[in-house]
Amino acid sequence: MANTTHKETFPVEKVRRYLEPGPIVLVSSAWQDERNVMTMGWHTVMAFSPSLLGCVIASGNHSHDLVRRSGECIINLPTTQLTDTVIGIGNTSGASVDKFEHFGLTAEPAEQVSAPRIRECHAHFECRLIDDSLVDRYDFFIWEVVAAQVAPTPVHPPTLHYTGDGVFMVAGEMIDRRHQFLPQML
Amino acid sequence: MANTTHKETFPVEKVRRYLEPGPIVLVSSAWQDERNVMTMGWHTVMAFSPSLLGCVIASGNHSHDLVRRSGECIINLPTTQLTDTVIGIGNTSGASVDKFEHFGLTAEPAEQVSAPRIRECHAHFECRLIDDSLVDRYDFFIWEVVAAQVAPTPVHPPTLHYTGDGVFMVAGEMIDRRHQFLPQML
Repeated sequence: MANTTHKETFPVEKVRRYLEPGPIVLVSSAWQDERNVMTMGWHTVMAFSPSLLGCVIASGNHSHDLVRRSGECIINLPTTQLTDTVIGIGNTSGASVDKFEHFGLTAEPAEQVSAPRIRECHAHFECRLIDDSLVDRYDFFIWEVVAAQVAPTPVHPPTLHYTGDGVFMVAGEMIDRRHQFLPQML
Repeated sequence: MANTTHKETFPVEKVRRYLEPGPIVLVSSAWQDERNVMTMGWHTVMAFSPSLLGCVIASGNHSHDLVRRSGECIINLPTTQLTDTVIGIGNTSGASVDKFEHFGLTAEPAEQVSAPRIRECHAHFECRLIDDSLVDRYDFFIWEVVAAQVAPTPVHPPTLHYTGDGVFMVAGEMIDRRHQFLPQML
């Protein structure tokens, strides 16, 4: 098993490296004496600097209120080591269960937000809510990534990409075409 | 080369199958006597029904004005067969070049919108702009998918997922965990 305990600070303006390819993520949150984790696949990078992300957290999810009230969350990046956990978390409501305990996940303190990081994940993106104007209409939250930490290995983590119907695509081969890009497009 | 000419109608409420995994897409658009194509990786599913997508099309792109004025676009799904084209389109401005001609792409009429489909792509998602309230602030467009067509083969198309720095991840292995999901989560 890869050593996901050791993480290094990662530049927030480069989070597209991990999120633009579209992985399933685990969103952790906390408000007062509650904490929760949810599985989430509806997200997009929105800007490099400030580092902005948008995501849908439906109001039926227990996490919806926690992230809205706290104005914070952490987007954690799981890999195939956590496939069973990702599915289990999606099947379970945080209203009745502490998912950290139930799934044996380690909550550890973050740098900039009060929500806990999930140590078993490959990377953590600490987020502050900067725009909730589309929450009522679309459950769409816009976040600024204020800190990020990434495990240095594996360099190409086997992330999970959800297609619906219980089927995931796993990150495959990497192809480097840097030489074909105009410098200003990199 | 797969036969991408033949497409079948696909239910719009299921577009997550192709877009939630996070592929690079080609956005085609038209307004008056202009048409264009751009490479785009910042998008997310936002709802099943109506079928909503959100995406960032930066104002520096020639396509920004075309999609805003026409209120339409088509999100086309390329595969690794089009890697060179995807990069070439990203390197080129539609202000000076007709990218369909320049890259040998076939523009074909769509069902519900005036923007052209790109025949060489694996799938087409025809979109109508339904919310431009975040365009001025974030270049963020919210679309309703009003029609969709998908090539029946290959069943698991080798999509491209951009990580920045000229490097793509190609869609890898599929893992079916349907049996682990609660029925209401499928």
